[in-house]
Amino acid sequence: MAARFIALFNQPEDPAAFDAHYRDVHTPIVRRYPGLRDLRLTRTDGVAGRRSPFYLLAEMVFDSRAELDAALASEPGIESGRDLRNFAGAGVSLFIADDDADA
Amino acid sequence: MAARFIALFNQPEDPAAFDAHYRDVHTPIVRRYPGLRDLRLTRTDGVAGRRSPFYLLAEMVFDSRAELDAALASEPGIESGRDLRNFAGAGVSLFIADDDADA
Repeated sequence: MAARFIALFNQPEDPAAFDAHYRDVHTPIVRRYPGLRDLRLTRTDGVAGRRSPFYLLAEMVFDSRAELDAALASEPGIESGRDLRNFAGAGVSLFIADDDADA
Repeated sequence: MAARFIALFNQPEDPAAFDAHYRDVHTPIVRRYPGLRDLRLTRTDGVAGRRSPFYLLAEMVFDSRAELDAALASEPGIESGRDLRNFAGAGVSLFIADDDADA
């Protein structure tokens, strides 16, 4: 792995509506990111009997930080950011993990 | 990958003190987790000119969810949780990503 664009979605008010939008609208946009190597979607569980603070972990994997940056600046990158307002009203944390930077 | 125990640490007030404690005290405890396959530490960057909400992404990788659960219940698992109060006062989000569960 080289560089990951990570989105952590807070627990939605309506999980079924969130899932449908993510699957039918958001994922097709993300799949159009240039250079996207992998899209990993994982439900999260809490620890020690606590509920997870997050509902969904989305990891978009690129071969390099440069490819990741280019994808975010691309038309689908901008469109995916704009689409967040349509289903991520409960909140989302976005960040980049550059696995090469810490080698 | 099978199951990850993930810790996302908020930006600390004193990054140098955080780093020293993480390296010299916390990491040696985590390395004692039974079944730990990999410990991946990654600094995070923000997106679109915003600062990352998190300072450090720590991923503890296990072969299975059962091994992860056993590690958290072990003596070093309990000790690492107790150690959080010594350096993670700015806050930490803990959750489990079971990569097999979504297959």
